[in-house]
Amino acid sequence: MDDLRTTYLMKLEKMMSVEEQIIEGLPTMIDMATDEGLKAGLTAHLEETKMQRDRLTKLFAAHGYEPKGMEDKPFKMMMEEASQELEMITNPNVKDAVIIAASQTVEHLEMARYGTLVEWAKALEDDDGEKLLKETLGEEEHADKLLSGVAKGNLLKDSVNEKAAEA
Amino acid sequence: MDDLRTTYLMKLEKMMSVEEQIIEGLPTMIDMATDEGLKAGLTAHLEETKMQRDRLTKLFAAHGYEPKGMEDKPFKMMMEEASQELEMITNPNVKDAVIIAASQTVEHLEMARYGTLVEWAKALEDDDGEKLLKETLGEEEHADKLLSGVAKGNLLKDSVNEKAAEA
Repeated sequence: MDDLRTTYLMKLEKMMSVEEQIIEGLPTMIDMATDEGLKAGLTAHLEETKMQRDRLTKLFAAHGYEPKGMEDKPFKMMMEEASQELEMITNPNVKDAVIIAASQTVEHLEMARYGTLVEWAKALEDDDGEKLLKETLGEEEHADKLLSGVAKGNLLKDSVNEKAAEA
Repeated sequence: MDDLRTTYLMKLEKMMSVEEQIIEGLPTMIDMATDEGLKAGLTAHLEETKMQRDRLTKLFAAHGYEPKGMEDKPFKMMMEEASQELEMITNPNVKDAVIIAASQTVEHLEMARYGTLVEWAKALEDDDGEKLLKETLGEEEHADKLLSGVAKGNLLKDSVNEKAAEA
């Protein structure tokens, strides 16, 4: 790990693991959600996530790098804890608010990681990598804003948070 | 956990655990950092983090809530993994780049969580809580921008990322 290129590829591997875990876990979250705007937003983001995974595959191929199937274990634990929390909640409005909270934590974690990777790609003069990673970063930022909108009720008459507070 | 107020307090407890873990772990990161701007930025943020912990203590008192000492375990695992990664790196420039990456992941995680908590405080009409949490959120956003500046070299002649790429 003692040069930036190796570290860059290792961090990309971790992101592959993150994307795969999201692809696996998001359908359950979509099923649990009640708010229609939230369901639609998460469903659209699931499709984006699949494209993000494919971009990483492209990037590995461009670097002649064979992924080792490294797992992001802290992320796995975070996802498992979120699921357990959600199972304890029966009120659908509180559940929606907690789904949004968990999803925004994931989006921010991805924004941080892809933000770093874009900068590292630049420093390493990996122009194609920079372009692909920027596309993904833009999608994560957009997904995060959309979730904030649903939470605050910018997109809906009654916000998820207001309904949850009445529960 | 079936009402938003209980969930809000539980999430605040998790943030208390996050702040305490940062207060414990950040000094080691500061010691490992080489770049002077990075060292100074992290040192200033350590002091801010102590104030953030104190704000949470105030908030619990205002709600007549006795914290149960709940631990944020996925965050702990994330911190441990970051430490292990850093121990594997000997090149000081790559090390700095990885310290920035880890710190920005933490900042983003906190921005997501405090962003949610500010909105929940609003929905629950906890005006004092909203104010305190907004102060913390602003500090996290500022710390994140400062770290981006160090990484990209806005604050320094030679950026950490450029030096790391040459390693």
